[in-house]
Amino acid sequence: MPRESLKEPILAAALKVLQQKGFNATGVQDITEAAGVPKGSFYNHFESKEALGIEVLERYWQAGLNSLKILEDTDVAPVGRLKDYFHKLNLRARKLDYRYGCFIGNLGAEMSDQSPVFRKRLATIFGVWSRAIEACVREAQADGSLRRDLDAKTIASFLLNSWEGALLRSKVDQGWGPLGEFEEVAFTALAK
Amino acid sequence: MPRESLKEPILAAALKVLQQKGFNATGVQDITEAAGVPKGSFYNHFESKEALGIEVLERYWQAGLNSLKILEDTDVAPVGRLKDYFHKLNLRARKLDYRYGCFIGNLGAEMSDQSPVFRKRLATIFGVWSRAIEACVREAQADGSLRRDLDAKTIASFLLNSWEGALLRSKVDQGWGPLGEFEEVAFTALAK
Repeated sequence: MPRESLKEPILAAALKVLQQKGFNATGVQDITEAAGVPKGSFYNHFESKEALGIEVLERYWQAGLNSLKILEDTDVAPVGRLKDYFHKLNLRARKLDYRYGCFIGNLGAEMSDQSPVFRKRLATIFGVWSRAIEACVREAQADGSLRRDLDAKTIASFLLNSWEGALLRSKVDQGWGPLGEFEEVAFTALAK
Repeated sequence: MPRESLKEPILAAALKVLQQKGFNATGVQDITEAAGVPKGSFYNHFESKEALGIEVLERYWQAGLNSLKILEDTDVAPVGRLKDYFHKLNLRARKLDYRYGCFIGNLGAEMSDQSPVFRKRLATIFGVWSRAIEACVREAQADGSLRRDLDAKTIASFLLNSWEGALLRSKVDQGWGPLGEFEEVAFTALAK
């Protein structure tokens, strides 16, 4: 059996390299070099670069799933949870380099047409993500803090997609302005 | 001098291939095959794949620049121009396959970290694009049809980034829903 001790550093290094360089421009050797492990060890742990990519995606999304708990914290008013949630996503993005962007969005832009495996998994992830936001939007509409002339599902999808667009623009501009603009416009314009 | 007659089909085929497959996954041979020209003819016209990519980008953006004229048509009320503009962008996107997305957004996601040449040009393009939208937003605020509690520049940037995010989501979902959601939420929530 392959040693787990090499799988962990490969996965950790792969996320960084894949987020920066994208999937196609990253070679297995880039990953093993970044992880400081022998190139040959890669295929002891992963069948292919795509198989590694899916494991990296699942791990990245696990962290995303964990942060969705903010949206369920009933100690905070629903609209406050929504603001906190996106603010924390932005703080997390800002801790990294401009070059990272969102791994889910980057992979979607680059790989949706090339890999049905990636595309289908990403579509499912976006669906789960949207529905978590939608539940909180619905609560905020019910307590009168968010506008009710738009459907909760539509608002949730719009918020998520707009945030992805803002992060993409930050990556291109090498500046965090778009993330702040997203928070300001979205929550001013959607307030009741 | 190389014959211009081969440059044109190469550029036209390259846009389609690059939009679908992305930059890194596209080989020169993919482009010459799609164009139906000998592989050797590529380097008579382009120094490198990056040089071709920049020419494709300029041509794509030229079409984008032309459509910005909708935003300057003073026969139409400013807010109507904004709605028409994004609606026409969406109609154009829907004429193509889901797989295309926005060439500017796709290239930004994939190449911003790998090519300073692409990144800088894309940042400039997004800047010009934002400012054209901003001018129309400012007019719509002045005539009272768009909310004034947000800065015109901020709204314009938000609209553009949100639209890019919506198109990215359409690509991942293989469905056009996000484009309609963008129009509905943005123009309902930003209306005065």
